[in-house]
Amino acid sequence: MNKIEHIGIAVNSLNKSVPLYELLLNTSCYKTEMVASEQVNTAFFKTGENKVELLEATDEDSVIARFLEKKGEGIHHIAFAVDDILAEMERLKANGFVLLNETPKKGADNKMVCFVHPKQTNGVLIELCQEIKWV
Amino acid sequence: MNKIEHIGIAVNSLNKSVPLYELLLNTSCYKTEMVASEQVNTAFFKTGENKVELLEATDEDSVIARFLEKKGEGIHHIAFAVDDILAEMERLKANGFVLLNETPKKGADNKMVCFVHPKQTNGVLIELCQEIKWV
Repeated sequence: MNKIEHIGIAVNSLNKSVPLYELLLNTSCYKTEMVASEQVNTAFFKTGENKVELLEATDEDSVIARFLEKKGEGIHHIAFAVDDILAEMERLKANGFVLLNETPKKGADNKMVCFVHPKQTNGVLIELCQEIKWV
Repeated sequence: MNKIEHIGIAVNSLNKSVPLYELLLNTSCYKTEMVASEQVNTAFFKTGENKVELLEATDEDSVIARFLEKKGEGIHHIAFAVDDILAEMERLKANGFVLLNETPKKGADNKMVCFVHPKQTNGVLIELCQEIKWV
């Protein structure tokens, strides 16, 4: 894993939290993006080489809505950048980790992503992500 | 805030979680450190420019023990590296954020640290940290 690519934070309202995180991080939100497949609106902030991603549910049955209902606002996942997501998925499976999706799926911010089951990682939801390159 | 310096993860047992995170992150734990003032044992991993810090309570009345009792294992805080912690504390206070310590305190890993109250940051406990330089 190359670095922390971003931290995903579940919030009730981007309208409220984007200005708050702009003040907190002292930087402007540089991108918002709706990820229809995940039923989520996202907002991104740069902090050096890393990013903070705010996540707002667009449907009450979405993963983020269920997280907010169960745990309230807070950190939802840590995403690590990888060079070869398929190889990293194989390495983790060979070491006994359980993946939440067996093939990489399209995430926000032009990434292919895979999640690792948090029950095996001390309750931490880990995302692997690899930038999609168009050649 | 320059970058994410580290993610702090509360765990029940470093003995169990250090080998697990070595497998997960595919890197060896490079340092363990007891922080007596915080009643915590820490273990550090490098992931590129960032770090992952595992936190184990050394006393049942410690902050980490109470966190584990209330929420279970999981992400405890995000730490951002800053160049001038006093200036950043002033900036945050001027913007209405509440600090959990009014003066920087000695943290793990040769850092002076300050925490921001999570009630104002969507439930996310934010740490500011500045490397201590000996001149």
